[in-house]
Amino acid sequence: MGNILLYDTTLRDGTQAEDISFQVEDKVRIAKRLDELGIDYIEGGWPGSNPKDITFFQAIKKETLTTSKIAAFGSTRRARITPAEDNNIQMLIEAAPDTVTIFGKTWDFHVREALRISLEENLELINDSLVYLKERVGEVIYDAEHFFDGYKSNPEYALQSLQAAAAADVDCIVLCDTNGGTLPHEFPVIMAAVQKAISTPLGIHAHNDNGCAIANSLMAVHLGATHVQGTLNGFGERCGNADLCSIIPALNLKMGKECLGAGRLATLRSASRYIYELANLTPNKHQPYVGNSAFAHKGGVHVSAIERHPETYEHIRPEAVGNRTRILISDLSGRANILAKAEECGIELDSKDPVTLEILEDIKDMENQGFQFEGAEASFELLMLKSMGKLKQYFSVTAFRVIDTLRESDKAPVSEATIRVKVGGKVEHTAADGNGPVNALDFAMRKALVNFYPQIADVKLLDYKVRVLPANQGTDSVIRVLVESGDHDQRWGTVGVSTNVIDASYQALADALIYKLYKDNH
Amino acid sequence: MGNILLYDTTLRDGTQAEDISFQVEDKVRIAKRLDELGIDYIEGGWPGSNPKDITFFQAIKKETLTTSKIAAFGSTRRARITPAEDNNIQMLIEAAPDTVTIFGKTWDFHVREALRISLEENLELINDSLVYLKERVGEVIYDAEHFFDGYKSNPEYALQSLQAAAAADVDCIVLCDTNGGTLPHEFPVIMAAVQKAISTPLGIHAHNDNGCAIANSLMAVHLGATHVQGTLNGFGERCGNADLCSIIPALNLKMGKECLGAGRLATLRSASRYIYELANLTPNKHQPYVGNSAFAHKGGVHVSAIERHPETYEHIRPEAVGNRTRILISDLSGRANILAKAEECGIELDSKDPVTLEILEDIKDMENQGFQFEGAEASFELLMLKSMGKLKQYFSVTAFRVIDTLRESDKAPVSEATIRVKVGGKVEHTAADGNGPVNALDFAMRKALVNFYPQIADVKLLDYKVRVLPANQGTDSVIRVLVESGDHDQRWGTVGVSTNVIDASYQALADALIYKLYKDNH
Repeated sequence: MGNILLYDTTLRDGTQAEDISFQVEDKVRIAKRLDELGIDYIEGGWPGSNPKDITFFQAIKKETLTTSKIAAFGSTRRARITPAEDNNIQMLIEAAPDTVTIFGKTWDFHVREALRISLEENLELINDSLVYLKERVGEVIYDAEHFFDGYKSNPEYALQSLQAAAAADVDCIVLCDTNGGTLPHEFPVIMAAVQKAISTPLGIHAHNDNGCAIANSLMAVHLGATHVQGTLNGFGERCGNADLCSIIPALNLKMGKECLGAGRLATLRSASRYIYELANLTPNKHQPYVGNSAFAHKGGVHVSAIERHPETYEHIRPEAVGNRTRILISDLSGRANILAKAEECGIELDSKDPVTLEILEDIKDMENQGFQFEGAEASFELLMLKSMGKLKQYFSVTAFRVIDTLRESDKAPVSEATIRVKVGGKVEHTAADGNGPVNALDFAMRKALVNFYPQIADVKLLDYKVRVLPANQGTDSVIRVLVESGDHDQRWGTVGVSTNVIDASYQALADALIYKLYKDNH
Repeated sequence: MGNILLYDTTLRDGTQAEDISFQVEDKVRIAKRLDELGIDYIEGGWPGSNPKDITFFQAIKKETLTTSKIAAFGSTRRARITPAEDNNIQMLIEAAPDTVTIFGKTWDFHVREALRISLEENLELINDSLVYLKERVGEVIYDAEHFFDGYKSNPEYALQSLQAAAAADVDCIVLCDTNGGTLPHEFPVIMAAVQKAISTPLGIHAHNDNGCAIANSLMAVHLGATHVQGTLNGFGERCGNADLCSIIPALNLKMGKECLGAGRLATLRSASRYIYELANLTPNKHQPYVGNSAFAHKGGVHVSAIERHPETYEHIRPEAVGNRTRILISDLSGRANILAKAEECGIELDSKDPVTLEILEDIKDMENQGFQFEGAEASFELLMLKSMGKLKQYFSVTAFRVIDTLRESDKAPVSEATIRVKVGGKVEHTAADGNGPVNALDFAMRKALVNFYPQIADVKLLDYKVRVLPANQGTDSVIRVLVESGDHDQRWGTVGVSTNVIDASYQALADALIYKLYKDNH
């Protein structure tokens, strides 16, 4: 049982990702959440390269963190000046973080081509930058940039550069796979050589360019590293940094390593979600441990086994990381899936009840028509409720019309929908414009219903997908529409199928609203 | 230098993914593309579990594959019957594939809890199922389900189960990490024990539940496995299967292993894209090797280094896998692509011609709007021709209207389109019904044009895809429509983008007809 220090660089290396840009307020909110999660170090930015980052270091001082230390990032001094003359280094000290991390060059090729100085001079500036900082800052970490490529190019020199850092008595030396090209089987030999050359505690900083960042990080820990750098959700340049959302549970649950505090691992999924939200990115369904699909089961054989013994097809208990088992409904599914799904929705269904078999038949029939209930669990739930006679008729649409018009002078067509809806004997007949026919129909339907059901105003259309299913020869193609809707506390998916895209969309939209009304009632 | 056999299970294990469902036609198209890529084995499905899969094995026989063998998947026989009496096994033989792969139980816990038979009986049914198949099928592969978990629970029994398979003289024994929970550092000891127990060639089948599927696959090869199972893009249940798009280049470029044929590695990215398209999924930007961001550089320091020496921040040359370096601030690398594309279409374009730069600007502008020309090469070609002044105005649509009506007595809405088209001074004003607004508009447009251009009658709409692109805050979502059309000798793709789905569809449909007229002229 050893203790591993977690170093999160979502706020620095994470923002190098193509699609990520955080405001200072976002960075402060993320830092507070990482602190709650129990991360040991939060790298807040590079004060010498980015004015936004200076503001962050000022702002974070006003917050009370209970666990995390704040680290500032920078580089070794420039050539031919002293650390005291180096603006970059001075700004690190001014930022007044708990910890300073600077990177230096390990790879002889980079020393010659990027720094354009002698190998000897590089060793000097690594050492004196670190000595200078170590005298002025409580804790100093050294990131050996391109360590693995450097070692492969010139092992003696790469190790000398680590020794130059070790001689400055730094608190940790981090081996960086900056280009992300190293494979796990290369670690044992390289780590052994490092451990022979220096006795400073070692860290790992892996990038995911070959899809091995998580594995490489865990391999380094297995071989003795005690400090792991990464980002939540693996955000980072190119293919991303090592994903702490996978590393943390593996360390805790599989390798017997202590990290985070007691009871905090179960908040991992919600922390992951929170950061996706602030980054305005859709979470990766298939993300290990924390993704929506991470414990989702489709095959009938798997499902009946899972019900009896979850460990048959789950490598950990999903609850350990705040996730849950999900049973998917598809053409591969059997009766066990239906029962499991019903239970999940809080619907009592007896395996001997003929209605179970009826639902199964209905589903097979609908799947043959082109329905698909994965991603449309709300439609599935409505289907079950309807079969069991437990679904109220909230409204009925008796007529609608959608008109799209393009005239000579228009840049794009204009869409208008009219609709006639009946609710408890009352008829509402109304109209709305929209961006395209589906949008117009959606608006008109809500407008017609909102006077009867004000909560309809909370529902948002979040995603809309259309798939044309290949037709048999001589027949019309079938169109499947998947709609994702949400309100302030939930998201749900619905589906419609028809040869007519408007009809399929209408079915999915209507289901989305019915589901909202049903769930608010129960 | 060794030879590694690649075994793709996109069509079987890949379809276990939550969001994937392929029609038989899709499966045939994917198999053909995997064959072109140079994959050794294509696992087409499980004939005993799914009627759709039987149809696939019939359909694929009509195609000529140049590289790949087709494998059918199934399980060992059931208890208390002979292989000859086992329906599952008989259907494998009836499917008449080149290779049969069956899985059996390795984990004592599963034998007791799932099969509910004795450990001894399980060894018998592994052996006699394989012996029976080996006598009737050219090549037999054995998937040892849950091998790693089984080994950890009861190493002696796990190895005995492999020996039962080896005694049947199977062609390959595949160690499966079915639950995806194994870590790379566990491989050396386990693989050594296997290699001591049996001498059959070994394969690896890894799942990504701990984010290590790629690493585990490569680790197994490093330790002597010669057969790797995975899926393109890592499609698969829960967190996916091992992604062949990362494994293949690592084997080829980093581990000195032969796989695919000469020159085919550079088609990896386009194969990856093709399969995303057929699955109607958005490609993962950050996917190693083949993702759009895999070689995208944001930081200023990196960019200037990259310009001089790409190896400073790129672990491989992106061109090796058909990808490219992208500089996110000033993207000039596109010019070469444009020239290459023009050449491919038989259009003469001079790199010094200002029109090249203009096309580049147009494309950037359109890509910012949401256009995407992968899968819409006909629209791309028309764009180039238009910029060069080489595209004739075949027709202009001056107005259209589409009306969808649902009345009380209707089962589904009725769609009608009217259109006004001008061709060489003559105006045609006509109308048509259709299944949905897009279909009606398509019919009306053809009806208006066919008197001027009779060849329009040959064009068929083969596929129609709609994707909603994420909107910026406060703006409307943008919709992208991809249309695939065909005539008796060619297929082509076109694209349209708008906030209105009818407008986007109209653009793509109009391009499809213009392209037909252009190509018949040249």
